[in-house]
Amino acid sequence: MTHALSRRDLDFLLYEWLDVESLTARERFADHSRETFDGVLDLTADLADKYFIPHNRLADASEPTMRPDGTVEMIPDVQRALAAYAESGLIAGPFDHEVGGMQLPTTLARASMAWLQAANAGTSSYALLTAANAALLAEYGTPQQIDTFVRPMLEGRWFGTMCLSEPQAGSSLADITTRAERRPDGTYRVVGSKMWISGGDHELSENIVHLVLAKTPGGKPGVHSISLFIVPKYLPGDDGGRGERNDVTLTGLNHKMGNRGTVNTALALGDGTHRPGGEAGAVGYLVGEEHRGLSYMFHMMNEARIGVGFLATALGYVGYLKAVDYAAGRTQGRPIGAKDPAAPPVPIIAHPDVRRMLLAQKAYVEGGLALGLYCAKLVDDLDTAADAETAADLELLLDVLTPIAKSWPSQWCLKANDLAIQVHGGYGYTRDYDVEQHYRDNRLNPIHEGTHGVQGLDLLGRKVIMRGGRGLSLLGARISATADAARGRGGTASAFADGLDDAWRRVVEVTGTLWADGDPATALANSSVYLEAFGHVVVAWLWLDQYLACEDRSGDFYDGKRMATRYFFAHELPQTGPWTALLASLDDTTAVMEPNWF
Amino acid sequence: MTHALSRRDLDFLLYEWLDVESLTARERFADHSRETFDGVLDLTADLADKYFIPHNRLADASEPTMRPDGTVEMIPDVQRALAAYAESGLIAGPFDHEVGGMQLPTTLARASMAWLQAANAGTSSYALLTAANAALLAEYGTPQQIDTFVRPMLEGRWFGTMCLSEPQAGSSLADITTRAERRPDGTYRVVGSKMWISGGDHELSENIVHLVLAKTPGGKPGVHSISLFIVPKYLPGDDGGRGERNDVTLTGLNHKMGNRGTVNTALALGDGTHRPGGEAGAVGYLVGEEHRGLSYMFHMMNEARIGVGFLATALGYVGYLKAVDYAAGRTQGRPIGAKDPAAPPVPIIAHPDVRRMLLAQKAYVEGGLALGLYCAKLVDDLDTAADAETAADLELLLDVLTPIAKSWPSQWCLKANDLAIQVHGGYGYTRDYDVEQHYRDNRLNPIHEGTHGVQGLDLLGRKVIMRGGRGLSLLGARISATADAARGRGGTASAFADGLDDAWRRVVEVTGTLWADGDPATALANSSVYLEAFGHVVVAWLWLDQYLACEDRSGDFYDGKRMATRYFFAHELPQTGPWTALLASLDDTTAVMEPNWF
Repeated sequence: MTHALSRRDLDFLLYEWLDVESLTARERFADHSRETFDGVLDLTADLADKYFIPHNRLADASEPTMRPDGTVEMIPDVQRALAAYAESGLIAGPFDHEVGGMQLPTTLARASMAWLQAANAGTSSYALLTAANAALLAEYGTPQQIDTFVRPMLEGRWFGTMCLSEPQAGSSLADITTRAERRPDGTYRVVGSKMWISGGDHELSENIVHLVLAKTPGGKPGVHSISLFIVPKYLPGDDGGRGERNDVTLTGLNHKMGNRGTVNTALALGDGTHRPGGEAGAVGYLVGEEHRGLSYMFHMMNEARIGVGFLATALGYVGYLKAVDYAAGRTQGRPIGAKDPAAPPVPIIAHPDVRRMLLAQKAYVEGGLALGLYCAKLVDDLDTAADAETAADLELLLDVLTPIAKSWPSQWCLKANDLAIQVHGGYGYTRDYDVEQHYRDNRLNPIHEGTHGVQGLDLLGRKVIMRGGRGLSLLGARISATADAARGRGGTASAFADGLDDAWRRVVEVTGTLWADGDPATALANSSVYLEAFGHVVVAWLWLDQYLACEDRSGDFYDGKRMATRYFFAHELPQTGPWTALLASLDDTTAVMEPNWF
Repeated sequence: MTHALSRRDLDFLLYEWLDVESLTARERFADHSRETFDGVLDLTADLADKYFIPHNRLADASEPTMRPDGTVEMIPDVQRALAAYAESGLIAGPFDHEVGGMQLPTTLARASMAWLQAANAGTSSYALLTAANAALLAEYGTPQQIDTFVRPMLEGRWFGTMCLSEPQAGSSLADITTRAERRPDGTYRVVGSKMWISGGDHELSENIVHLVLAKTPGGKPGVHSISLFIVPKYLPGDDGGRGERNDVTLTGLNHKMGNRGTVNTALALGDGTHRPGGEAGAVGYLVGEEHRGLSYMFHMMNEARIGVGFLATALGYVGYLKAVDYAAGRTQGRPIGAKDPAAPPVPIIAHPDVRRMLLAQKAYVEGGLALGLYCAKLVDDLDTAADAETAADLELLLDVLTPIAKSWPSQWCLKANDLAIQVHGGYGYTRDYDVEQHYRDNRLNPIHEGTHGVQGLDLLGRKVIMRGGRGLSLLGARISATADAARGRGGTASAFADGLDDAWRRVVEVTGTLWADGDPATALANSSVYLEAFGHVVVAWLWLDQYLACEDRSGDFYDGKRMATRYFFAHELPQTGPWTALLASLDDTTAVMEPNWF
């Protein structure tokens, strides 16, 4: 039996909870219907079963290598899967008709991609990166850049990357040293070293379109001197094909703990290995204006961060489904208090501690999926907003939720993978079962696209105080609306509402306490703790909202949703108490600790 | 720079905190002195540097394989290290003079072994298993069995294993199906399959002494029909060497997520591959009496469980030391609130969130080491107890602390490894740095020698209610003594004492609440949560005790200890609040969840 996500859960989240079918009443999505949405999900599942799932473990065991001639070798299954995906047309799903897309709602596109991420994280990432790159260029590129670069990416002939980090600058982009210099013809020559570039070199596609951050003369120091460039592996040819080899050279592969199916590279730009136009230096094409590169890149980064959240969720989800299967089939031990030692052993799912581990996983992965899809729906609402004010509010809400959508699944769906190993016992620790790979693959997610620490600084240091804290108020209004609706139901729902209101009130209060003296050093000393508390309250809210969407329907599926909500409110939400109390105390333990005392 | 444990910390814990030098006043340890203790630690560090650390990564990358002839191939560095260790005589350290030991206190022997575990978990485990096996036989074997099997193990010529698990029975030993049948000469023939046997086959030693659990006719069903056997790979020869090949056959190797340096095997006993004495069946020698096998094995299991705790601590510890080094050397970003983007970047240890991650690691790994050494010191006190009543109390206290000593480091020092990866950022996710291997190696520890879930059931279901709860009272008396001493100091120490008293009171109260109706199903529904709460309170106690041992000494080392105590009381101990509240509510979420609802 193959596993990716649960279609039943996805149908619930999309149709019963978020009501994405109502999007088809909007002009942008008018060509769509429940049938086209289901068609996308069916097609995705079929691709996953046929092309993505079968080589997931093989790709982990046979990571890409660099040949003596400097090219990358990998198992052929990766290319076959990506060719089938390109053939399906799904890569262009959410793009505008005018660039060859199908104007699929982002919510559906994300659900489809998450399915592939659960099926095979390593292979799916080439497609994800390409779509993210194309989305940035579709937004900020010139018509000619779109024609030249976006179209072949949406056709799956060219792939894309994002080149931000350098060996000495990962989290701190102000310190990048790659430089670009303008030539009389308007092109640039780019020189520098880039590190951790996923999909940075391979033979999977005709060409690779790198989006590269580089400093150009004349800007203020730090991030304000950064511009964004298109630096293709091959310069575009006259016929829409690829032309001359650009001066972008693979200098090494990174050998990682997991996520080995995605080739991860160090690249030299402009080291003279190739001489396009007879001259060393990587040819680059400026995107938008000089010195605004980071703001364009953040457009892609925000999408990428939500994408990381989906990836973390997808890996947690598939591990959870496998753990449930294993626990239902593996027999061991007898019920607590059983008197007869000769009675046959029971499936381990009968043991409360195993059920605790499965319920925790369910609460994390279904909560993570709800969080991601909720954010995706906000993007659809933003893309179809009736007026500028609505759009501004939606964008602000999305800004506040993005660090949560990135960090929460990266932490808790990774924890789900840890629990999936534990449910499998000694077998889970071996490579004969999949769960240890899912853990290793997922361990990347709290690191890339902004570490957990960076997300905490972003949330508390920027997002919740932007525009006078309006983002926090907008989120609070939605949380209160859910709590009010739940209180209207009475009983258990009302008790959940009280718990949620109380937890949110503590988050809002502590935000004020932390910023009371306006000193960032005081406010941000424990920003990671703030991030965790905030995230748990947001997911509690989304669980209560799912609970309400179950209404009074009966059946195993709805009972499971209700129990997962109950688990989250009994076992998880109360953990925010000590976290907000610590924050409220303005604890400075970490701030006053001296390096020499370690 | 090589890393294992911190000698400064070890000196503090052994001499300033536990005062192990005072043990030399006892008859058993009269030959020893601070000089012999230091000599053992110096020798260990030297062995670690020369023989254990250098091949740690190589052993991970080149795991053992099975040759076509059924023998095990591994890198030669493992044998060289173990030969040097055997040569040092340390393997016999804590054993009695009369069997060739040096009557070293267990506390020192554990500290020495922990150093090797930090240096190279995979290679050290052969020595650890051999010593544990020899200790069991020294206790329960006949003089002839001791001569035949214990002496060659203490000389490092023969190695030992413990064979409990079977493919269908890991946590549930009642379900083992290996059987033994007595022959007229008093030997037995053993037939069955054993799984997950560490060190189960190799060419590292002349012979391998398996201690095997098997059922013999006539006992009650379940665990009461289990007996314990010595089943050597080669029958003992007349000359003290090895004789005929026994019918124990390697049937496969397990390929694990980590801990790859330790060969992990599936063994067939008595499948007729070999025919000792012309007959199929593995020859076994009964240890002690029939049907009491599990009680003997638990003697070894309890030692092994504390050993797992040390292993988990050691791996967390070495990762912590590497993370501190990395954070002090890696520059990135600027201090929060810094105005000048052109200022040079600072070492990442300057960032509060990095310090939080390092402080958490310090609190976990130094707390774990304190916990392990405290238990080891109890063993020394037990071995030299003045009277039976004192001995009984010490044994009971050790019984209560054993599930904590096993599970707490397995959970939190694994978390330390996770944080060490996070401190290293993208580099930590690669195999160019050591920390991901430490994580993978450590991930085994919450699984083997009784999973986390099994430890929770053992603590709450057995240990805290044994003898009318006397173990809980004994532990409470020690906790109160520390709290009282701290209150005498006033100030911060007094505030810590109040926090500790309050947390312990909640643990004791909730123990009563959980067992109020005497129904194990009610009591044990959330036993893992109980285990976690209990463990955090125990480690808070040991941190406060270390804090007191710092007295008013000044210097970086003592400031570090005080800050780690402060971290534990501010960030960690408060987490027990929601855990004990959940337990007190008799929450039955996990108990009522139905398998079909997942």
